[in-house]
Amino acid sequence: MSDSGDTVQALLEANAEFYRAFRTGDMMAMTSLWADEDDILCIHPGHATLQGRGPVLESWFDILASPPNVVVADPAALITGPVGIVTCTEKIGTARLSTTNIFRMQEGAWRMIHHHGSQIFAPIDEPENQTSAVH
Amino acid sequence: MSDSGDTVQALLEANAEFYRAFRTGDMMAMTSLWADEDDILCIHPGHATLQGRGPVLESWFDILASPPNVVVADPAALITGPVGIVTCTEKIGTARLSTTNIFRMQEGAWRMIHHHGSQIFAPIDEPENQTSAVH
Repeated sequence: MSDSGDTVQALLEANAEFYRAFRTGDMMAMTSLWADEDDILCIHPGHATLQGRGPVLESWFDILASPPNVVVADPAALITGPVGIVTCTEKIGTARLSTTNIFRMQEGAWRMIHHHGSQIFAPIDEPENQTSAVH
Repeated sequence: MSDSGDTVQALLEANAEFYRAFRTGDMMAMTSLWADEDDILCIHPGHATLQGRGPVLESWFDILASPPNVVVADPAALITGPVGIVTCTEKIGTARLSTTNIFRMQEGAWRMIHHHGSQIFAPIDEPENQTSAVH
């Protein structure tokens, strides 16, 4: 596998590790996965933006107290220099969410710097309905 | 202003230009602002992920046929190498949305590679309510 392929594979593995920690309530792994910096961001479904390691990790501490059985589908990777973006679909019960996860390459590892999740309300697989009234 | 400051300022100006095009229905400006590549992404509120310049620009063509009066608040910039992330709040009528806009520096200009918008349903300015039941 090429270096580029290795990098993509490592990015998708970091994304999978995020969901393993999420699903199993592994706060230690979640803490390690997020970049140790105060400029990290997080937008949970239906919520305003959180910024800073304290507020972001506190929100995950609350969520992981009762971790949902989240299943991930269709991860797609987009790498530009030291930044890797993964979009994927989260399945939690009957809910479907569109998610953007952003990682920064630091000392040979992909560390998360932003997570943005939003619930899908529109019918899926109907391209003619891919835009909404609000936006 | 430092080079770093210039870069942040240019990123925030690109973000402002995106909203000017959005608000005024300027499809030509919107088309120029998005990176001319097939790996671009877009997640509209309540919708699944769009990938590719065709699907993404088609969705904006539909939206800009009846452009909403979108007002932007609290833009925050995070730059890593050639990638700039802006989070901001969109106000459309009484709706409030949390948005992530991602740009890639190309030939001296910030070009959009991803837009993810999601409506805020939770009370704002209540940190204890910053996590949801779904996530």
